[in-house]
Amino acid sequence: MKIAILLFDNFTALDVAGPYEVLSNIPGANIYFTAEKAGLYKNNKGMQISADYSLSDIPDPEILVIPGGFGIDAILGNQNILNWIKAVHEKSLWTTSVCSGALLLAEAGILNGRKATTHWNRVEQLKKYPVEFVNERYVKDGKIITSAGVSAGIDMALYLTGLAFNDKLAQLIQLAMEYDPQPPFNSGSPQKAPKEILELFKSAKASGKK
Amino acid sequence: MKIAILLFDNFTALDVAGPYEVLSNIPGANIYFTAEKAGLYKNNKGMQISADYSLSDIPDPEILVIPGGFGIDAILGNQNILNWIKAVHEKSLWTTSVCSGALLLAEAGILNGRKATTHWNRVEQLKKYPVEFVNERYVKDGKIITSAGVSAGIDMALYLTGLAFNDKLAQLIQLAMEYDPQPPFNSGSPQKAPKEILELFKSAKASGKK
Repeated sequence: MKIAILLFDNFTALDVAGPYEVLSNIPGANIYFTAEKAGLYKNNKGMQISADYSLSDIPDPEILVIPGGFGIDAILGNQNILNWIKAVHEKSLWTTSVCSGALLLAEAGILNGRKATTHWNRVEQLKKYPVEFVNERYVKDGKIITSAGVSAGIDMALYLTGLAFNDKLAQLIQLAMEYDPQPPFNSGSPQKAPKEILELFKSAKASGKK
Repeated sequence: MKIAILLFDNFTALDVAGPYEVLSNIPGANIYFTAEKAGLYKNNKGMQISADYSLSDIPDPEILVIPGGFGIDAILGNQNILNWIKAVHEKSLWTTSVCSGALLLAEAGILNGRKATTHWNRVEQLKKYPVEFVNERYVKDGKIITSAGVSAGIDMALYLTGLAFNDKLAQLIQLAMEYDPQPPFNSGSPQKAPKEILELFKSAKASGKK
């Protein structure tokens, strides 16, 4: 099973590492970090992950994962990346995104007429495309699964593992990663966060945009 | 605020990226990926992250994060790393671990007589040290905070952000990363997982040990 995760500068770290942690533990799965050119890619806070493959090296992954991040806007017009995504999607078993990665799928036309989700702070941007936004943690439409912001990629990847393989494998991986979340605060969505925190977010938009 | 995250070969990706995602979003925080020697370090499934600093480059981080992974066993006897951890801990504001990273703190003597936690599958190994194991998601004892397996590093880092800064900042970061977990299965701990899954884990120990 060939799984490609797209890298680009200013990706969000957990968008990448969440699905990676789940999917890389599928027996027989091989993860290919793929970018326009092979090399080191820098997260917006300095973490550097190596993309060992360029787009042309990985023409036919069975699973495609598009993470998000501040850097997504800079590649929305990148025809090399868009063409690769379109070609990969034609043959993929599953095409997925985390967070603002959905915008790249939308720009590639893959979400036209489809149900999808994204980071809560990117919803207006997604709605500019002919996409039906659904406010869920992850959304499946055919072979496309999009997920909400950042940490939602973990939930999406476990769901995908259940679908693409079986629920027992997904549960086994959940147990191995001790994914029994106990957030010390209840502030994980605009609906749940205290109003004051939502206001703080809006006033500090630059640091919040994912 | 100087924050060091230790890297070594065969780290667990989410042990690193979970706390990183939280702590790197603290305004003014600088994360230093630090390893015995600067260079690329390979996760057990192939992801490569760059350690831009060697131990001697970062003698005095205010916050220390020790992630876990298969590779932890190979460095439990590494005197360079152990001595660095001891020296850093003397001056740190907070010394933390994720998953089996607690074993390295234990080996350095830092957990002697302390309460601590680790990945559920590493508990017996931790109990070989003079440490009081506590079965919690994260455990604070003085300025030391240890956390349970893999994904627990996210919860620990939010808790730490609240302690080291303030709860509003932690809530703001939780909102930015849309950390509103909704695992599709309920299998995240040995207590919650179906018996059959726990048996599967034990029989596939090699792939489960974190």
